[in-house]
Parts: sequence; C-alpha cells; structure tokens
Amino acid sequence: MKLNRKSPVPLRKQVEEYITNQIAAGEWATGSRLPSQRTLAERLKVNRSTVTAAFEELTAQGLIAGNRGGGTKVINNTWGLMAKQKPADWGAYVEAGQFKPNLPMIRTINQAEFIPDIIRLGTGELSPDLIPSDELAKLFLNAPIHSLSLGYSEPKGNLRLREEVSKFLKLKGIAADPESILIVSGALQALQLISIGLLDRGSTIVLEKPSYLYSVHVFQSSGMRFYGLPMDSEGLMVDRLSHIKKEWGKTIIYSIPSFHYPTGKVMTAARRKSIVNACEYMRLPIIEDDVYQDLWIDAPPPPSLKSMDRSGNVLYIGSLSKVLSPGLRIGWIVGERSVINRLADIKMQNDYGSSALSQWAAEEYMSSGMHEAHESYIRDQLRIRRDRMLDLLSVYFSDLAEWSKPSGGFYIWLKLIPNIDPNALFECALASGILLNPGVLYDRGARHHLRLSYAYVSKREMEQAIPALRKIIVNLVD
Amino acid sequence: MKLNRKSPVPLRKQVEEYITNQIAAGEWATGSRLPSQRTLAERLKVNRSTVTAAFEELTAQGLIAGNRGGGTKVINNTWGLMAKQKPADWGAYVEAGQFKPNLPMIRTINQAEFIPDIIRLGTGELSPDLIPSDELAKLFLNAPIHSLSLGYSEPKGNLRLREEVSKFLKLKGIAADPESILIVSGALQALQLISIGLLDRGSTIVLEKPSYLYSVHVFQSSGMRFYGLPMDSEGLMVDRLSHIKKEWGKTIIYSIPSFHYPTGKVMTAARRKSIVNACEYMRLPIIEDDVYQDLWIDAPPPPSLKSMDRSGNVLYIGSLSKVLSPGLRIGWIVGERSVINRLADIKMQNDYGSSALSQWAAEEYMSSGMHEAHESYIRDQLRIRRDRMLDLLSVYFSDLAEWSKPSGGFYIWLKLIPNIDPNALFECALASGILLNPGVLYDRGARHHLRLSYAYVSKREMEQAIPALRKIIVNLVD
Repeated sequence: MKLNRKSPVPLRKQVEEYITNQIAAGEWATGSRLPSQRTLAERLKVNRSTVTAAFEELTAQGLIAGNRGGGTKVINNTWGLMAKQKPADWGAYVEAGQFKPNLPMIRTINQAEFIPDIIRLGTGELSPDLIPSDELAKLFLNAPIHSLSLGYSEPKGNLRLREEVSKFLKLKGIAADPESILIVSGALQALQLISIGLLDRGSTIVLEKPSYLYSVHVFQSSGMRFYGLPMDSEGLMVDRLSHIKKEWGKTIIYSIPSFHYPTGKVMTAARRKSIVNACEYMRLPIIEDDVYQDLWIDAPPPPSLKSMDRSGNVLYIGSLSKVLSPGLRIGWIVGERSVINRLADIKMQNDYGSSALSQWAAEEYMSSGMHEAHESYIRDQLRIRRDRMLDLLSVYFSDLAEWSKPSGGFYIWLKLIPNIDPNALFECALASGILLNPGVLYDRGARHHLRLSYAYVSKREMEQAIPALRKIIVNLVD
Repeated sequence: MKLNRKSPVPLRKQVEEYITNQIAAGEWATGSRLPSQRTLAERLKVNRSTVTAAFEELTAQGLIAGNRGGGTKVINNTWGLMAKQKPADWGAYVEAGQFKPNLPMIRTINQAEFIPDIIRLGTGELSPDLIPSDELAKLFLNAPIHSLSLGYSEPKGNLRLREEVSKFLKLKGIAADPESILIVSGALQALQLISIGLLDRGSTIVLEKPSYLYSVHVFQSSGMRFYGLPMDSEGLMVDRLSHIKKEWGKTIIYSIPSFHYPTGKVMTAARRKSIVNACEYMRLPIIEDDVYQDLWIDAPPPPSLKSMDRSGNVLYIGSLSKVLSPGLRIGWIVGERSVINRLADIKMQNDYGSSALSQWAAEEYMSSGMHEAHESYIRDQLRIRRDRMLDLLSVYFSDLAEWSKPSGGFYIWLKLIPNIDPNALFECALASGILLNPGVLYDRGARHHLRLSYAYVSKREMEQAIPALRKIIVNLVD
C-alpha cells in the first residue's frame, strides 16, 4: 500500500480509505484487532497524528471502536456503512442551469400524457389514428432505403428534402431556393436556434397575447423579454407597434397568423399586409410561425406574411409535426441566406443536424404525392371533430362559457363565465382523468380561459369529457 | 384609398407607397401626368406638405419628375426601382446571437466535407461503407413498423429503447434503470443540455488538454470557462486538481477516458480509480464521454468511470453515432434521477424529444442481437485501416513526425517535427483535395499536431493522401 502524495485527497482521508478497504475486503474481520496506530503510521509512511485522525473519523462512523486496553477493534463492516459516500451536490447543479425549468403545470402535462386512459382535451397534436402510419410504413417499405445515407448530413440538412420543401413552399407563393432553407427538428428547435443565434440577452420579442411562446421558455431562458400585444378580430394589433422600437432596442416580432395558438384566430389579409409593411418600414424582423397553415377546415387562410415579404424581413417556420407526424421531428426555417447560414452553423454545434432517417422519410413522403390526399383527409376529420365538439359545447357550456368557431387548426379558446381558480380546475379535471390546457399557460392574465383541442381526443372521449368537465366546473363554482 | 392614421408608418411614407402602388399597378403609366399635389392632398385627406414630401422622396428615387410647367410625370416604373426595399438589418442580428459561431476552420471543414472526391483524412466517423446500411434496411423491413408510434415520445425518450440501453450498459458494468437514462440526439446534444441545464455562467469545465470540447462552443457560448489539464501516459493528471475547487467556484470535470479525442489515449484503470475517488472526495461531478468505448482494436479499455461510481457523481454519455451510424442521431445520458429529470425537462423545451423514427430504429437494432457481430466486424476493419495508416506513416513520415500506436478508436495524434503554420498546411492540403483536422482545433497550443483518422478514408485514399501530404509538408518547410 502506497499513499498518493500528489492526490488532492488528503492523506488522512487516504488512510481512512485504506482501512475501510481492508475491512470491506475481509482482511480485517469484524471483531478483529486493528494494527496499532504506530505500526500503521510506519507502514504507510505518515505521521502518527494522521492515523489518529483517521481512527477518530472511522470511530465516529461506527466502523471501529477503541478498547479500554488501548487497542482498536473492527466493530462493523456492513456494506450499508461502507457505501455511505457523499454524492456530488447535484441539487445545486440542478438549480443552477441557465435554462429555466418548464412551468410546473407544463411538466405535469408532459408526464400526465402518458397516464393510460387519460382524456387529453387540450393536446395540440393529431390523434394517433389520424397519423397515416400504415401508408407511411408502405411508403418506406417501397422506397429505395439503400439510398438512405446514415452519415451526418449537410449543415442545412438533406439537399433532396430541401428541394422538396422548396417546391412545397412555391405552391404557397413563397419563393425559396434550397440554400435559403434550414431543416430543423421541429418548430420549437427553430425558435431555440433563433433565440441563441440571432438575439442578444435583453432583446425584446413582440408577440400576440396570449401566445404559445408564453408556455415555453426558449426565449426567456436566453434572457429576452416579451412585449405582448393584444389581438382584435383581425389579429395582432399592429398599430400598437409604433413606439416600441425606439424604446426597446433590438426587437423581433413573433406571430402565428394562421389558426393562432391558442386562440384559433386567423389574421386577415389586410392586417397581414399592414404588418409586413410596418415592419419593412421599421426594419423589424418577423418570425412567422406557420405550422398550422395547411390545417384549414372552412377555407384556406390568406397568404402567409412570407409570401408578401419583398425585403427579406420575414423568417418563416414550417413543420410536418402538426399535419403529418410530430414523431418525425422535421421542420424548416426559411429566410435570408446569411441568416440561414448562421442558424445552420449553430445547429451543427447543437446536434450535428437532424436524424438522417427522419429526413429521408420526410423527403420520401413529400415527393410521393401523398400529401395532398392526406391533407384533404385531415381536413375532413378535423371538420367532423370540430363540429362535434362545438355541438357538445352548445349543449353543455352555453350557460358557462363563450367561444368562437375556429375555421381551422386544432383549438377552441373557451372563456369560462364563472370565476374559477385555474389550478384547482386543472387538478380536479386531472383527478377525473381529464387533462386540460388552462389559458394561464399562454397568458398569465387569461385565468378564465381553457384551450381545448379537438385534434387529439376521439368523439367518444369528447362525449365523455365535456359533460364531465361541466360537472367539475359547476361543483367548483358552488 | 384611406390612409391608416394609427399605423407606425408615417403618413408621408403611406402617400409614397400609395403613389408607388398606383404606378406599379399600371394605373399611372410611365410618361403620364400625376394628379396635382393639391388634388392628392384632398383625396387622401392629408396636408399638402405631406404630399410635397412624398413627391420629393419619389423624385429622389427617380420614379417621378417635375415639369417646368409645374406638373409631375411618371418617368420610371421598372420593378427594379419598385423593389428596392430596405431589408431588416439582419447583419446586426447575425452578429448578435449569444452562441458563438463555429471557428472559421471548423466551418470550412463542415462545408468541404461535401466537396466531391475530397479525401477526408481527419473525419471522425465511420466510412459509409462500414455502416451496415443493407443489414439495417433488412432489419427495418422485417420489423413491425406498425408498432412505430409517430407521435411525440415520453420526455426521457422511448421506454423500450431505454430498456435496451439499460441492458446494454449492464453488460459494461453500469447499473442504470430506464428512469436514469435520457435519450438524446447524439453526444453533442447531451453536452448542450448539460451546459444550459446544470451550469451557471462562469462555471468551470476541467478537461483534458487537448480535447474535443475545444473545437465546439457548446460550453463557452453559455459563458463557461475551460481549465485544461495535461495528460501523461496514464491519462488526465488528476493530481493537478487539488487546488481547483476552492479557486474556481462551480466546477465540473469532462473526460474522454477511452480512446481520447483527439489523442487516442486510454486512461489506465489506476488513474480512473484515482479520478473517481478524488472527485468523490471533492464532490466534483464528472461528465464521462464514452462514445468510443466499444471501438477497441487490441484489447478492451478498463471499465468506465461510471462503472466505478458508487456515489452518483458521474454523468455518463454514450451514443450509437461512432459505432453504428451518426445519421440516426441517437445517444444517451445516464445519471442521478434528479439530474436526468432536469435534463429531460430541458430537452422537451428544446426539441420535444428525438425523432421517434430514429428511436424506433435504434431499439430494433439494439434488440436484434446484431450489435455484437457488427462491433466485431468494425474492430476488424478498424484494425486493417489503422495498421495500413501506421505502415504508410512509417514509410513517409518517420523523419517528419512522431506518433503513438492507438489501441482503438479512430485517431492518430501526429506531431510534426518541422515548424509549419497550421493554417497554411490546412489550406495547402485542401487545395490538393485533402481535408485535415489540425491540432489547433483541439488545443490552441498544439500547432505541431494533426489529428488523423483512419476510420473514414479508404485504403486507396490513404495510399494517395499520405505521400501527397508528405510532399506538401516538405514544400512548406523549404
């Protein structure tokens, strides 16, 4: 046994460890007498005081005990005692990170989604039975998987996929060559890359209030602040923008013009034009989150802000998550080439690009011609679900709440008339097996609102949950 | 035409826009006379001075021109003139982000990898012909793709995949239940999540010098500093740790004990034990990056730090990228449950989890029993490649450089004897179609080093590139 005199572990501690190991290994059995302190000090080439200190510590730990006669005996060797190591103070590290934890309610939602038989009345994704898994499986089986490259992909993503996205955007009036397109792992990653790649701490995000963004921390965690603007019947009230830029320094606008999350509103064509013009004049960049665009039910929404953008002000975000499958994790950002280059560089530093398998699958899907038929199928299904939910609301909620009929997307923004604590409502509903998305997640002031979604729940579940929810609310009011 | 008096766009500007639109639409053709300023002022309900200002601006732009007689004519309507909008000042945004851009050399490498016929003498990934694409394709074809859920997955990742990872780790002496495992999109994302989730700005990362981490900005971009420790023949010199903690505040250790990137070194079992013990005593957490562990050629490396960790100090990172396919983007972090919960929460906020398709594929692969045969095949292939590269180095570089024989992994850490500017060498090699990874990427002081990789280049390419590289170096010395 040689002690390491260069180690940061003090010699006393090393002596302790030596003794502990001898006991653990059974060299010095329980009840046996330890070598004397002097013998050990000589053997280990340390001062006797070092050994004394080690003995004292081990005595305190209940491992050894001194005799009246001066000797020391092993009195314990349970593994329990041996194993009581102090772990790193992870608690402090868990507290420390710069990224804020999810809101407790969001964490509960993320967990509760995996409770069997829970009715997810607020989930903003397609029901699994609307995801064309069989068709996709068939498509993948017949596709030339041998062409699949499982290496890292180009910084901006698989070129063939970007070409497909470019064609897809052209149909929507957006001219974007593959070099102006970055493939990302969903729209949320797009926002994360923008937050760390384009904005300084202290920048301002102007956004609709309520908004999806209030429920995630992607910008706040990077030290940015929000400036929420109200919406009227036409959408984001752009005339409130006028004084912002001077006051607030570096600013960017975030908007969901089509089937807004969580209100379901569609911005009018006139308002879109005003926003694009105002931002062009003020040289304010816009992030247009357009992941719901294809999910119209009654009529297509007006053209995107990006399609009106002559100056390159608009960074456009699209995704397959809402219309096809969230599990693929495939989305895109479209913008000025210098901006896309920068974001691609950061994406490489964050995850070396998105899954090659997912990119391949997305490209196969988009080039297959399946998309049009799928979209029209989804629209029909959403119409049925929306109408059923509206019917149920008329029956069970006409005295309890107000709402508008959404013309597309997933959401009904329900305003409850009675004053109920949103946390209590959330908890009571959860206890009854119904998972809600309260409005406070999207605007702290929206204490009366619930964001319902007709995309995930089945008709049967709606028919069960809406009357049950009425009961819960009525009970909470009493 | 009604002007919007609430818009942040000044009236003068709106008048300008109105006139421009009339011209663009062909209402007022080139050569035609504009309405008088007074008429326009009345029509638009603005002061005449506002119209005058708009006329002046449009005159300056070359769109209209005054006549001697007092009238004003349209003199130009080219789209070129119309379209000259000022775009947002993206340049300032591109500069601003908190995330540092990649080193220019890294960006060049990321781009150059897609130049056809370039010989990638430093690429740290398996050659595409070593990726078992056919076998994987067959596996996927025969797998129950109908079981594939294309929805979002659980916060920690697909449970069945986590169970497979748990079994896989058990074989390596690491006891980790699925709740202690987080699926990530590769090891780089693991580091990114740790940097934003567990560490404050100003924290210190103690690491081997040179190290992979110096070539990415994942920690520095979050405001952390590096404290590089030298390596001796046994690995990271842990006895240099002693004074760090007191001085440096919150600290974490990052190490690649097996087949270290970029030196190829293997930390000895004794040193591993010392590090684990020292960190346990100092309550310093360790990030163990173990993505090369399975890639041994001559003999397996000693057990991982994690397998010796009794206190939960070690956060362990593994991945399929190096041994199977980087394109799958599947890796894992293993650690204390509270830490894993925190990281899972952040991952949800960053990208809502990894590709369900990739997770499904990884689980199919890991449960298929293919892995053992694949590993042994890869080892054989790496041995052949390594030995060939070592032979070529003996022939062409014995007077120019020094190196050690790596016992596994991908890398040979070549130390050139002559003093050559690394940038010049990089550029000249690139001009000759050879892509190098100079040592300065991993340690600013390693100006004499090159990190060669025998994993990516073919035998034929090695045989071409090594003699060519000799010539380039000899020319640069002269």
